[in-house]
Amino acid sequence: MSAREVLRMDGHLVDSLLLAKVLDAIVAAGASYRILELDLGTTNLDQSHVRLEVEAAGEVALERLLESLHVHGLNREDSADAALEPADADGVLPDGFYATTNFVTAVRLGGHWLRAANPEMDCAIVVDTTTDPVSARTVPMHRVRRGDMVVVGWNGVRVEPPERPRARPDTESSADGGGHESFGFMTSDVSSEKPKALVVARVAASLEAARSRRDQTGAGGAGLGSRVLVVAGPAVVHTGAAADLAWLVREGFVSVLFAGNGFATHDIEAAVLGTSLGVSVDAGAPQEHGHANHLRVINSLRRLGSIRAAVEAGWLTSGVLYECIRAGVPVVLGGSVRDDGPLPDVITDTVRAADAMREQVAGVSVALMLASTLHAIATGNLLPAGVETYCVDINQAVVTKLADRGSHQAFGIVTDVGLFVRELAVALGRRGH
Amino acid sequence: MSAREVLRMDGHLVDSLLLAKVLDAIVAAGASYRILELDLGTTNLDQSHVRLEVEAAGEVALERLLESLHVHGLNREDSADAALEPADADGVLPDGFYATTNFVTAVRLGGHWLRAANPEMDCAIVVDTTTDPVSARTVPMHRVRRGDMVVVGWNGVRVEPPERPRARPDTESSADGGGHESFGFMTSDVSSEKPKALVVARVAASLEAARSRRDQTGAGGAGLGSRVLVVAGPAVVHTGAAADLAWLVREGFVSVLFAGNGFATHDIEAAVLGTSLGVSVDAGAPQEHGHANHLRVINSLRRLGSIRAAVEAGWLTSGVLYECIRAGVPVVLGGSVRDDGPLPDVITDTVRAADAMREQVAGVSVALMLASTLHAIATGNLLPAGVETYCVDINQAVVTKLADRGSHQAFGIVTDVGLFVRELAVALGRRGH
Amino acid sequence: MSAREVLRMDGHLVDSLLLAKVLDAIVAAGASYRILELDLGTTNLDQSHVRLEVEAAGEVALERLLESLHVHGLNREDSADAALEPADADGVLPDGFYATTNFVTAVRLGGHWLRAANPEMDCAIVVDTTTDPVSARTVPMHRVRRGDMVVVGWNGVRVEPPERPRARPDTESSADGGGHESFGFMTSDVSSEKPKALVVARVAASLEAARSRRDQTGAGGAGLGSRVLVVAGPAVVHTGAAADLAWLVREGFVSVLFAGNGFATHDIEAAVLGTSLGVSVDAGAPQEHGHANHLRVINSLRRLGSIRAAVEAGWLTSGVLYECIRAGVPVVLGGSVRDDGPLPDVITDTVRAADAMREQVAGVSVALMLASTLHAIATGNLLPAGVETYCVDINQAVVTKLADRGSHQAFGIVTDVGLFVRELAVALGRRGH
Amino acid sequence: MSAREVLRMDGHLVDSLLLAKVLDAIVAAGASYRILELDLGTTNLDQSHVRLEVEAAGEVALERLLESLHVHGLNREDSADAALEPADADGVLPDGFYATTNFVTAVRLGGHWLRAANPEMDCAIVVDTTTDPVSARTVPMHRVRRGDMVVVGWNGVRVEPPERPRARPDTESSADGGGHESFGFMTSDVSSEKPKALVVARVAASLEAARSRRDQTGAGGAGLGSRVLVVAGPAVVHTGAAADLAWLVREGFVSVLFAGNGFATHDIEAAVLGTSLGVSVDAGAPQEHGHANHLRVINSLRRLGSIRAAVEAGWLTSGVLYECIRAGVPVVLGGSVRDDGPLPDVITDTVRAADAMREQVAGVSVALMLASTLHAIATGNLLPAGVETYCVDINQAVVTKLADRGSHQAFGIVTDVGLFVRELAVALGRRGH
Repeated sequence: MSAREVLRMDGHLVDSLLLAKVLDAIVAAGASYRILELDLGTTNLDQSHVRLEVEAAGEVALERLLESLHVHGLNREDSADAALEPADADGVLPDGFYATTNFVTAVRLGGHWLRAANPEMDCAIVVDTTTDPVSARTVPMHRVRRGDMVVVGWNGVRVEPPERPRARPDTESSADGGGHESFGFMTSDVSSEKPKALVVARVAASLEAARSRRDQTGAGGAGLGSRVLVVAGPAVVHTGAAADLAWLVREGFVSVLFAGNGFATHDIEAAVLGTSLGVSVDAGAPQEHGHANHLRVINSLRRLGSIRAAVEAGWLTSGVLYECIRAGVPVVLGGSVRDDGPLPDVITDTVRAADAMREQVAGVSVALMLASTLHAIATGNLLPAGVETYCVDINQAVVTKLADRGSHQAFGIVTDVGLFVRELAVALGRRGH
Repeated sequence: MSAREVLRMDGHLVDSLLLAKVLDAIVAAGASYRILELDLGTTNLDQSHVRLEVEAAGEVALERLLESLHVHGLNREDSADAALEPADADGVLPDGFYATTNFVTAVRLGGHWLRAANPEMDCAIVVDTTTDPVSARTVPMHRVRRGDMVVVGWNGVRVEPPERPRARPDTESSADGGGHESFGFMTSDVSSEKPKALVVARVAASLEAARSRRDQTGAGGAGLGSRVLVVAGPAVVHTGAAADLAWLVREGFVSVLFAGNGFATHDIEAAVLGTSLGVSVDAGAPQEHGHANHLRVINSLRRLGSIRAAVEAGWLTSGVLYECIRAGVPVVLGGSVRDDGPLPDVITDTVRAADAMREQVAGVSVALMLASTLHAIATGNLLPAGVETYCVDINQAVVTKLADRGSHQAFGIVTDVGLFVRELAVALGRRGH
Repeated sequence: MSAREVLRMDGHLVDSLLLAKVLDAIVAAGASYRILELDLGTTNLDQSHVRLEVEAAGEVALERLLESLHVHGLNREDSADAALEPADADGVLPDGFYATTNFVTAVRLGGHWLRAANPEMDCAIVVDTTTDPVSARTVPMHRVRRGDMVVVGWNGVRVEPPERPRARPDTESSADGGGHESFGFMTSDVSSEKPKALVVARVAASLEAARSRRDQTGAGGAGLGSRVLVVAGPAVVHTGAAADLAWLVREGFVSVLFAGNGFATHDIEAAVLGTSLGVSVDAGAPQEHGHANHLRVINSLRRLGSIRAAVEAGWLTSGVLYECIRAGVPVVLGGSVRDDGPLPDVITDTVRAADAMREQVAGVSVALMLASTLHAIATGNLLPAGVETYCVDINQAVVTKLADRGSHQAFGIVTDVGLFVRELAVALGRRGH
Repeated sequence: MSAREVLRMDGHLVDSLLLAKVLDAIVAAGASYRILELDLGTTNLDQSHVRLEVEAAGEVALERLLESLHVHGLNREDSADAALEPADADGVLPDGFYATTNFVTAVRLGGHWLRAANPEMDCAIVVDTTTDPVSARTVPMHRVRRGDMVVVGWNGVRVEPPERPRARPDTESSADGGGHESFGFMTSDVSSEKPKALVVARVAASLEAARSRRDQTGAGGAGLGSRVLVVAGPAVVHTGAAADLAWLVREGFVSVLFAGNGFATHDIEAAVLGTSLGVSVDAGAPQEHGHANHLRVINSLRRLGSIRAAVEAGWLTSGVLYECIRAGVPVVLGGSVRDDGPLPDVITDTVRAADAMREQVAGVSVALMLASTLHAIATGNLLPAGVETYCVDINQAVVTKLADRGSHQAFGIVTDVGLFVRELAVALGRRGH
């Protein structure tokens, strides 16, 4: 039932990351590989050569996988001639036409390999058998003419990975760091243009799995590697997601919370006064109710002495922090120079605050950073490499910044945190809103 | 039951937009005003002076409104002395403390006005009666000490709008255009940090109202001013929102659709192959299924001759364009230089495409631009000023760009279009996902 | 030599901000106005009416100004009929054609006002005298035909400001806050698409003026209102601008510096090791020299005891902080939870750090925030309203965030901080790089 | 004089891209490698193992390189025990302390490998010899105490690359595509926080090299692979860089220009009227001079018949397009639906416009995209894979979008295009501004 095929690839496979990307793609597709032959050369000036056997669940899956690998230069070992079909109308290609990449591409005809002129992405290859020798060219769809002989399928088509732009080590231009070729792959995981329902489902699955692992370790156990850390910024409240995050805490999806004075203040402001920075968060009217609301909340808390005291006094009866207190979820609030007040629970000494955070990261297996820059970077610096980390922010630059600081495992989600947390809560079973 | 109060404001009220902002805020709060006296001076060098009577639904609403107006420099006409209360603990202010702005602020004591030293936002004002004369200073919350006399309420507090930074007309620095003071108001409507459920509700209400107006005009009537125009970019499909937009079309919320080759291709690709740019949009696996999917879709359409023909042939059975064809919603697809193919329905001549769009804008009362830059700007250029326009994009710069091009009525919504359209459909009654 | 004209405007002038915008534009253009008549009505339901006399430096300047005001609905009081000229070729308008706005527009013909059909921006108005009655329509340039009678100039053209979209106070939709109409003006000052040489020149002029004022106050005096505050983030160093900022300090353009551990560490790292976060900042090779450079720098400073001690020991001999120490420019380094180390000079208690900043803001007249979010927001919260503030950041969302927090005087500059500071130093006289 | 060392690495080297990254870094540093032994296993479930000999220019360079490789898990083959030194003061580490990564790390003591507890980035490792067995822990700088034994250097330190988070192919979570680990590398090339002078120098060197190659091919020859393509958006003019780009054309650095109606119109508007979208681009005053300037320019050009005719008539005497006409640099102006006018030279049929662009891409070796989205993506789709491409935009999302569309060779530069082009002209020899 499973299907196999032997493929080969030639070129500067290692230092252009090509081999790695190809093997990665095979595994990502649920297939597996066996390396039959591998010659990496011995220096970076040598060409490499690899022969692989790929095995997939069935013929269809295999064919689809091979087609997607082919664009990276992984070619069938045993090629027959390319198949040709005539276009049956002007501007329309035969079904199954070979769609080009922007790499140099050759087609096998009469046992010989022939390069197609004018490489261009997303075109077809037309073979002209009336020239001597036979010639091939890259043709955009709208310029094909009825009767043109078009390559179909990808048998007998060979993609040549580009020459490395990197100069030899002793030349000046080696300084460029090789950013070029890997660029195409670089950014795909932080783009905002991904199906968001899938991303939500993935994060939901992680939170659910972590909660299950916790449950299995018994009532008392912290459960090594099953804790979920949430780092939350004020935008979680401003965008109306505090109630959803509070629900996540109540349902046991959150093990520990890191935040700053701003998040805590606005969460309490929303809970007590129904506003965030003076703007209504759930009523129909986004009008101002006084810019000083957050100050009054801070002042009241300072009088009460602590958030816990406010809960015990019945003054605070909902919201994220309320649920944390109720559920025994530890909270670390780290101070910053922009804080108003601050709340009595805020650790104003930043070295002590970071130490308090350090004490809480043991056993964390999933970290969810929600619209926080400062505390998210601080947390990223503290976490060991294996922690599954999701950074949710509407601003792509924030996600980039987090990554540039060395948080290798982070998965960037460029989206609206308000709608994201809402959908996350729904995906985890929240009803009625 | 309604409550009134007379207020006054002095300063450069007109050219600093202060009067306008204040009147705007009164109306936005559901209150009304009567101008009792207005002296704008006659030249831009004169100070202005205004006396207003404000009327609100009740004492509470009035007090809340007046407090929010006060921060802009609209003071009570008849001031008593400021009320003072002692702080009862270090670092804690009396309830009802007056929260400062960053403007110069004076307090009335013993019938005299006294400026508070060191203006700073979000602080309190402490009066020292032991000095001679009596003095007032701005104090951050944590530095108040037990027994300090703190101003409470805003009676007897007067905010002085800042001097205009603008120089006289004959000096060089008049060139700056006065960007300074209006800055605080400028960006508040395009921030991503707003409660998103409210924004969704507002757009939903607009779409519903327009549909109702259409229904009332009878079966055949287009209904002047009741049409809803949607401009959609490819990210609508990439982020998984095509099914929700299709539902909006099916339910009659959309009267006309503008898009490009990209949106149409990916919508059809998603409908026929379940992918968008080769990425699965609804299954669990965001892996590649071949980069050429969109080309195959375009090629098939070119063979079929048109999207309508594809629907009639039973080849296309779902998606946004399918629903448009079914519901008789006109679609204008404008070409661009980056198009693959293009689809046979695309108007490749851009002047003709814009003319086709022009024919469809009559009667449009609501325009919804979804993650589109090129077609949104083109549409914004065509619409008359009265059209209620919502620009939804995750990228704030796109929204800014749209505004800079002169689309005065646009309301910018910085959010994830995928989640936004999904929530919009839910708000309008979509169930079951 | 100066020229005058009487204009009038009708509509909801105040609560739509129209009057304010118009008066603002007059002053910004270096002209002046006299209000001859003003009737604002008494409530927000009344129409307003204003008559203004505008005076400019000459006929050309006046005409240009009036033309730009006209698009906002400020019309000549005494209108003659509109002037018409025939188009002399298909698709080409007569010189001087009237260019439309997207507002409803009327033209005066035979003493009567006639609305042009199909309002659309950036078009011409064509009058058809063969219809009965005479008709006018809005025509895009490419659709004008030879012989069409086209309105030229703007005499006899009347722009009608749009009806306010705001509902009456007692209806639900009044909640929207009127974001609509002000949108066109909102974002223009934070766009990245402005001539940058002008912006640089403006900031340079401010710094120069402040330095001159300081010089005039004599050797010892701090000079009330002449101090320049710089708030700097790490990107100043990463982008290679530290040497330029150091030059600004050395030349006396900076009076006080606020920053965090990151900026200070990277400035010292660049000065001592020539790298920033391990990346070379001035050599030809942006390759890594070890990620731990900043840690070694911090550790050395901790051993030395303070930045001043490092300067005195001859260990630190260049850079921004070195120049500050040398020039006696006070520096406040506020701690944050993400800090490595931190440096011994960092005030780790954030409440104490903010208090230290408070002590330094007296006398500040210009604030320059360079690629800093946290410290810029903290500083914005402390500054009184009159301080001229420039926020330089490549990320528009950061500038928006700063504004949303209430820093009303901020002028946002969306640009590359590295290139900006470099150009600023050149504009202020730096040579040789 | 050159220095060598044998290293080894174990783990999932291929599918985690680790081997590729390490080899890449070696070559980027100007060093070379020889693979002595390589065992990739045969399936993706096997561990890999590699032995490399690395050769660098000298001992210092080698040591620095090895240290930077070590953080990725490339360890010395022959390890002695780790060296330890006592801390000589609280909160201060010995010079040369080993700075940790966030990976699991072991130290060799008494011939045995010992894992350090609590892996955390940017810390030190302290060994406690008083415990039995001896223990090691990760300690942040501020928590080290005088006398603590700290690991110095990286001999005897082994970094263990993290376990792959990827599940086996037959489990559901294999769907995630492996975004995790490559994240740290993904975004580093598009960050805005890079030394900009270096980036400018690099692009300048490319343009200079291409011009030299052109010069060497003789007077008449187009010179295969020596042409420089510039794609320019309107922001080039708005930000004041048109004069600099015009200079680049005049000096022979540009071989072909792609743009749209907007860029061309604003370039001509700036040349003829000194404004861009009505805003002055070089005078001191950024005030409005009439929104219709660009329409008048378009209309004049339509009357003149073409840009070439306008140059020949002496109507257009400066600017980018003027210089292109003068220098015989081909220009392709592609139409779009948002165009006003358009200019007579604009190819309004987008399929024909793309074909005209296709004809010009042969021989292009360097492409410089300046603040253009639409035309940059269109061009990226047409270019073969080997072309060195620089995308300059202030908006990181635009650069990402370009990359997501498959333009693999693109090097993203997030900066202000106005300042960038100015600096580029200066770097290539422009004087006098």
